[in-house]
Amino acid sequence: MSFSFELIHKEKDTAARLGRIKTSHGEIDTPIFMPVGTQATVKTMTPEELKEIDAQIILANTYHLYLRPGSKLIAEAGGLHEFMHWDRPILTDSGGFQVFSLSELNEITEEGVYFQSHLDGSRHFISPERSMEIQMDLGSDIVMAFDECPPYPSEYDYVAESLERTIRWAKRSKEAMTSKEQALFGIVQGGVYEDLRRACVEALVEIGFPGYAIGGLSVGEEKEQMLEVLDFTTSVMLEDKPRYLMGVGTPEDLIEGVMRGIDMFDCVMPTRIARHGAVFTSEGRLTVRNARYERDFTPLDHNCNCYVCRNYTRGYIRHLIKRNEILGIRLTTYHNLYFLINLMAEIRRAIAEDRFLKFREKFYRQYQI
Amino acid sequence: MSFSFELIHKEKDTAARLGRIKTSHGEIDTPIFMPVGTQATVKTMTPEELKEIDAQIILANTYHLYLRPGSKLIAEAGGLHEFMHWDRPILTDSGGFQVFSLSELNEITEEGVYFQSHLDGSRHFISPERSMEIQMDLGSDIVMAFDECPPYPSEYDYVAESLERTIRWAKRSKEAMTSKEQALFGIVQGGVYEDLRRACVEALVEIGFPGYAIGGLSVGEEKEQMLEVLDFTTSVMLEDKPRYLMGVGTPEDLIEGVMRGIDMFDCVMPTRIARHGAVFTSEGRLTVRNARYERDFTPLDHNCNCYVCRNYTRGYIRHLIKRNEILGIRLTTYHNLYFLINLMAEIRRAIAEDRFLKFREKFYRQYQI
Repeated sequence: MSFSFELIHKEKDTAARLGRIKTSHGEIDTPIFMPVGTQATVKTMTPEELKEIDAQIILANTYHLYLRPGSKLIAEAGGLHEFMHWDRPILTDSGGFQVFSLSELNEITEEGVYFQSHLDGSRHFISPERSMEIQMDLGSDIVMAFDECPPYPSEYDYVAESLERTIRWAKRSKEAMTSKEQALFGIVQGGVYEDLRRACVEALVEIGFPGYAIGGLSVGEEKEQMLEVLDFTTSVMLEDKPRYLMGVGTPEDLIEGVMRGIDMFDCVMPTRIARHGAVFTSEGRLTVRNARYERDFTPLDHNCNCYVCRNYTRGYIRHLIKRNEILGIRLTTYHNLYFLINLMAEIRRAIAEDRFLKFREKFYRQYQI
Repeated sequence: MSFSFELIHKEKDTAARLGRIKTSHGEIDTPIFMPVGTQATVKTMTPEELKEIDAQIILANTYHLYLRPGSKLIAEAGGLHEFMHWDRPILTDSGGFQVFSLSELNEITEEGVYFQSHLDGSRHFISPERSMEIQMDLGSDIVMAFDECPPYPSEYDYVAESLERTIRWAKRSKEAMTSKEQALFGIVQGGVYEDLRRACVEALVEIGFPGYAIGGLSVGEEKEQMLEVLDFTTSVMLEDKPRYLMGVGTPEDLIEGVMRGIDMFDCVMPTRIARHGAVFTSEGRLTVRNARYERDFTPLDHNCNCYVCRNYTRGYIRHLIKRNEILGIRLTTYHNLYFLINLMAEIRRAIAEDRFLKFREKFYRQYQI
């Protein structure tokens, strides 16, 4: 196993932690934000641009790549890194979440999940073993156990029953993951129920994984409830393993997650809102496609030092986006990813210097949610 | 006037020439291919990428920028260079061609042209004076006289009459162009009629311009006819002024144009076909979105050394284009522009070494039209 996690520093006032993950494709400083490259591309970005903004790891989606172009094709190309020209770490999800959220679900059995593609209605079956096989074809550095993501809200009894199966699937995932170069993370489910989350953590730790993810959050519950679940879930998780909060990633979510001891985040939001002409700034979100920015010849964010903010104005970017020019959403995407990655770098410095709460306070004074 | 043209070398066997244009935004080696940035952006490309592929000058469209975002707005932003973050030379057309080809034409009078926007039907009027005013707002380095482009085919009498007006408009354009930093080119019209082309050249030379364009070609006539018009038109054009063949730009057109003494070319074709997944290669055009390239893990062009060909495969680019991923058309666009710009660099070397005909022969041996 070429994977390791080192806990470097625990912040004095909060549960925030500084760590370092090592993989055979390089190191990752945690806490980290991982840009999402659903279809083997972080939308609009080249790998070189991702490096320019210091992306240390990206995420790719097993479900999408399994359907198109197919994981066997990617294996033939030499794996996902080679296929997409990215030589730093990649994390792939298990396909579970998309099977449950995107596809037309036909049947969940003990063996696995029967579903129809959201693209063409074709019939497929994914089990823990299939998910591991696909992720081995992809050759990602961090792979995720195949789990069920119950919708929100779900009754306690359903979540409890589903959870038992997810734990059995986690065990089967571990047995099926035979690649020594890929680190398999377990996924903590359990909805909003404290005892179920705790039981899941215990069961997964019993099986034993090099890292643990928290799934099933940011799926419709109130923000307060999400933070509460995070509180009681992280409180029982292992200290010496990385903790990954799946699919969560507004600036404020990153800060609140880090404060509760989360090490890894991913979210499509920065790239998705960019395509609609919305950007993060140090003062909050801004929709640059709005008419009010037509003659605004200042940068997207006055406090940002990224390539976009150094060279382009709101007025120009608005023009591009209004004209459906690709450069427009290239620039908003670049800026948004830079914003979150840079935010995480600042967070890491604050943790290292034991001033995370001050940093958080200052952030919220400026940033209008 | 900060514009100059130096004729450096005349190739021994053909009319091909090597030259250098100087503008206040830098020098241009001719013969040159100019990428088109219709809406103040060369589609999908950043200015840095354009420099990476050694684009020395780009073209922008007066008609489009006049309509949106408006030339006054661009003037407020500090001019087109500042607005779009491009500090090398820019050439703008006069708006004439688009008024005649895109808009709904209402009336052509001696004074100018009344038309309705192709975008929203709004009513506008452009005259030589208005065109110069707009191009002065844009602040391009090379500006074009306002001309009428008769459709192809057009009767001799109509072309002759239109030409007279175009010449009067050229004179008014010159009088209206009061910016000393901008070089105004005259445009030779005259359809496919030799005597009209000759008369137009003479009349324009009489007015006097620092450069001359050939308009109204590649508008539907046969390739042979275009080359014939080029032959008799260039034969009467001044030797010591740059010659710009407007809107022409397949690889073979560039070679044939250069051979007949053309110095400057522009064309939307390389960027347009890129968006449909087609690329130039040293062996001819290739539609990389075709199924046959699904598992082709070789570069777009085996003989190309561009960023795309060094780092990506046909299979990956096909995947991106089939999935409508922006990176796909970024890569095909980048490659196509590199291909034409690099072709021109090779052409310049061949001219310098008096081996243009050999170069041409070798090109056609490889390149399947």
